Amino acid sequence: MHCPDQKGIIASVTELIHANQGNIVYIDQYVDRVNNLFFMRLEIEFHFKTRSMDAFQHDFDQKINQAFQAKSNFYFKNQKPKMGVMVSKYDHCLYDILAQYNTGRLHCEMPLIISNHEDLQTVAQQFNIPYYHIPVSKETKLKAEKNQLKLLKQHKVDFIVLARYMQIVSKEFISNYPFKIINIHHSFLPAFPGAKPYHMAYQRGVKIIGATSHYVTEELDSGPIIEQDVIKVSHLHSVENFIERGQDLERLVLLRALRLHIERKIMVYQNKTIIFN
Amino acid sequence: MHCPDQKGIIASVTELIHANQGNIVYIDQYVDRVNNLFFMRLEIEFHFKTRSMDAFQHDFDQKINQAFQAKSNFYFKNQKPKMGVMVSKYDHCLYDILAQYNTGRLHCEMPLIISNHEDLQTVAQQFNIPYYHIPVSKETKLKAEKNQLKLLKQHKVDFIVLARYMQIVSKEFISNYPFKIINIHHSFLPAFPGAKPYHMAYQRGVKIIGATSHYVTEELDSGPIIEQDVIKVSHLHSVENFIERGQDLERLVLLRALRLHIERKIMVYQNKTIIFN
Amino acid sequence: MHCPDQKGIIASVTELIHANQGNIVYIDQYVDRVNNLFFMRLEIEFHFKTRSMDAFQHDFDQKINQAFQAKSNFYFKNQKPKMGVMVSKYDHCLYDILAQYNTGRLHCEMPLIISNHEDLQTVAQQFNIPYYHIPVSKETKLKAEKNQLKLLKQHKVDFIVLARYMQIVSKEFISNYPFKIINIHHSFLPAFPGAKPYHMAYQRGVKIIGATSHYVTEELDSGPIIEQDVIKVSHLHSVENFIERGQDLERLVLLRALRLHIERKIMVYQNKTIIFN
Amino acid sequence: MHCPDQKGIIASVTELIHANQGNIVYIDQYVDRVNNLFFMRLEIEFHFKTRSMDAFQHDFDQKINQAFQAKSNFYFKNQKPKMGVMVSKYDHCLYDILAQYNTGRLHCEMPLIISNHEDLQTVAQQFNIPYYHIPVSKETKLKAEKNQLKLLKQHKVDFIVLARYMQIVSKEFISNYPFKIINIHHSFLPAFPGAKPYHMAYQRGVKIIGATSHYVTEELDSGPIIEQDVIKVSHLHSVENFIERGQDLERLVLLRALRLHIERKIMVYQNKTIIFN
Repeated sequence: MHCPDQKGIIASVTELIHANQGNIVYIDQYVDRVNNLFFMRLEIEFHFKTRSMDAFQHDFDQKINQAFQAKSNFYFKNQKPKMGVMVSKYDHCLYDILAQYNTGRLHCEMPLIISNHEDLQTVAQQFNIPYYHIPVSKETKLKAEKNQLKLLKQHKVDFIVLARYMQIVSKEFISNYPFKIINIHHSFLPAFPGAKPYHMAYQRGVKIIGATSHYVTEELDSGPIIEQDVIKVSHLHSVENFIERGQDLERLVLLRALRLHIERKIMVYQNKTIIFN
Repeated sequence: MHCPDQKGIIASVTELIHANQGNIVYIDQYVDRVNNLFFMRLEIEFHFKTRSMDAFQHDFDQKINQAFQAKSNFYFKNQKPKMGVMVSKYDHCLYDILAQYNTGRLHCEMPLIISNHEDLQTVAQQFNIPYYHIPVSKETKLKAEKNQLKLLKQHKVDFIVLARYMQIVSKEFISNYPFKIINIHHSFLPAFPGAKPYHMAYQRGVKIIGATSHYVTEELDSGPIIEQDVIKVSHLHSVENFIERGQDLERLVLLRALRLHIERKIMVYQNKTIIFN
Repeated sequence: MHCPDQKGIIASVTELIHANQGNIVYIDQYVDRVNNLFFMRLEIEFHFKTRSMDAFQHDFDQKINQAFQAKSNFYFKNQKPKMGVMVSKYDHCLYDILAQYNTGRLHCEMPLIISNHEDLQTVAQQFNIPYYHIPVSKETKLKAEKNQLKLLKQHKVDFIVLARYMQIVSKEFISNYPFKIINIHHSFLPAFPGAKPYHMAYQRGVKIIGATSHYVTEELDSGPIIEQDVIKVSHLHSVENFIERGQDLERLVLLRALRLHIERKIMVYQNKTIIFN
Repeated sequence: MHCPDQKGIIASVTELIHANQGNIVYIDQYVDRVNNLFFMRLEIEFHFKTRSMDAFQHDFDQKINQAFQAKSNFYFKNQKPKMGVMVSKYDHCLYDILAQYNTGRLHCEMPLIISNHEDLQTVAQQFNIPYYHIPVSKETKLKAEKNQLKLLKQHKVDFIVLARYMQIVSKEFISNYPFKIINIHHSFLPAFPGAKPYHMAYQRGVKIIGATSHYVTEELDSGPIIEQDVIKVSHLHSVENFIERGQDLERLVLLRALRLHIERKIMVYQNKTIIFN
């Protein structure tokens, strides 16, 4: 939940939960003092024999949302979000996601993989995930995106991972999944946005390279940053070394971002993320 | 505050603060589910024109501490703790503390430096801090500690920093400042406790070295860890290189621990620290 | 190559290579000044039309090895070493190795996986690697190791990876592959050797956890360290969180060690590694 | 030394040193395969009783520089370079440099500090370093730089540290000390060049902040990078927290760069650094 900052929010919320026989197992709040905004994430245990989720939400709406001009979202912990994966030709992030998914370490469902190339079909087959090949060219992009969206909707996808999907997605596409498309960019943004960041990093002679996962917004590589990490490099490393070392980073950074998103630990506002972790 | 975990703590506390016209500017809590313990740190703004600190504390004691078997401590934010510094011959940590202190970045008072050697007297003079030289030998240790304690009490020291003080302090000494003596050890504990950790790290051929700040307890280098950090090394580095690189770490790790302690962001239980940061 | 340190080694070696019409594309040397030892790694381009590898090695043996009491090994860059993988039930390291192997990023051959459990058979099948299940109990250990060795020899395995193989291998087993068995241990050694390091780290309240890859020697978790890395943790993390975060580290640290070993960038002496990287 | 890459350089150089009764205690070389350039750094022990430095250099010039179109520089290890320090109002980097210098851990001389403000005069006095206050305004900048240069030349300064000197130095000023002026910039360049990088980082919502030390060239914050490091931040940190945490980084990153420069371990070409470390 989030709302304008004001006195008594925490007291009111905790009191309400208490009155509904809920038990707070986790509470974390953050106040943005510059913009006077209040954010809170709670994990609550309820015994729904005596009190339904609907009844609680109704109560919450009346006594909290209206009183404090708050917005709030409720999720059941065991309700797994559906993740759509989009890839091109690079397999390192895809393998990592599949291996983690396969052994239950990513608490989501994974109904499909979409790609503009056929290359990774065999990888999808190894893990028995449906793979849809939708070629994208400059001319067919609009139509391709329509087909992609159709598939994503059919499979009731909740959020999308661009696991090194080398295409820029359109404004229209994004508007279907606002702050629900997670990208991995292979630089420590805002350094080296756009194409070939490892080459640019090599050219500039930096001593650290990085990877950034972020929500996709209209402006390229400028959406809210979820997670970043870096690794040291030196003059001894070629562009190829940058790429090899960077790929290890990309996999980890994307994975951490996915875990946070799947566990609903991220809130977005003003093009930034609040990570309750 | 901390107490056995139970329903309604947060609601009761926040309600009480609200009722006292206090405004919570920071709340952070942690529940140890293994031991069923509840910990919380709050920062509260009060207007003491209408309500005194004493009255609030009395109220808190009645309605929270007694109801929940809780223990709680209250501090005024502008009340600076008094830090006693103990050193031997190494100056790198001392210089860092003095430089930070001198420019107001350590929100404490620094009434004295005690050393078993004369070497760092000139450093103390550079920064106008009283320096007391109390030699320590095997025979005089007991008496020396009495003199140290006398000085520390005279200067109303709240906590002590062993800024590379190369002596082991006695059980009796520690009992005067339980969880109030902060040490910096030059390894990533529990690896390499005791003397000459850099030499031992070199001997073992580790690829990372570290530094650990911790509260001093009776058992050597085994107290609650506050902060740790590491740095990569390789076969190219000699013991001397380990020491040089390690000293940069020691300074930073100790400084971070001091900041946390001074800002009262640390709770200790079961030989561990909870860091509210 | 390595030998006692003395004047003129580099000059003699480079001159010899020059005289053999070789071109040094990489040279790196290290002198251990404490023990007066000299180590060097070279990458050389030869045109073998005019001069055979045997002839060069013969020349090297005469003019370098004998003159300087040196030991040296020669490898062709395109000659892939054969890696045997041993696992128990954890799949995270195995998946990482298989994914990297499958896409040619590990420049080795991978003739077999051996396990004391059946659990990971399906993973091996996903990647079409022969999987041998050899159960190990206290009573059958000796015989099991004989069977393992037989398989490893049949497949002409050059080195072995214990990818979270939860058994202690015997002195006899190790003697077949001296400094050719790579283990991943889930702590920053020498802290927390042996069983359940994450539990011990949690118990101790450390602020960093780590992973260590090392060559297996007779003494448990005490062999030459190849690679280590760490990640920050806090009181907020449970043992389960330690394990989850640690597994990401284990995968990366093991992978980096494998790459170094496969590319012959590691020399071992006095229970330490020299990494030419 | 550096030159176009070609066969036989190392052999010729090591042979020449050997012939001059020198002993190579360190050799490190790097070949830029993209631009076909060869770089080498050597540390050599000579007994100058039988052979003078001049004679050796003459020999080197004849047999190496001319034969391979090489450029080379020679330094005596005990010859300390003279460092001029320029500051404005921030004292954290200055304190670090002074403390390290004072205890002999920076192997240089430090004849003067120049500042456009009077604020840090007392810090200079604490450490007995001459402090020159030269005010700089838009109108007086040209003249101020002339006075600065005059002072620097008088004190025979070899290289300059801008230890958070908040002025842009002119092209003319730089031309007096090409690749001899070291700056510390408070971001991981090329992200956030120019003014107020911490504010920009906060605005962008990055999860890591950094510091970069580099040689000053004509284009702002675009010179060859010597050293970079980063630290994790989160939504919990304010701009003030960024600044506080960043200052710890700035001090360390600048210090490491200074050590490398002072020990002559840096070569510059094509706006990059080669660090022999």
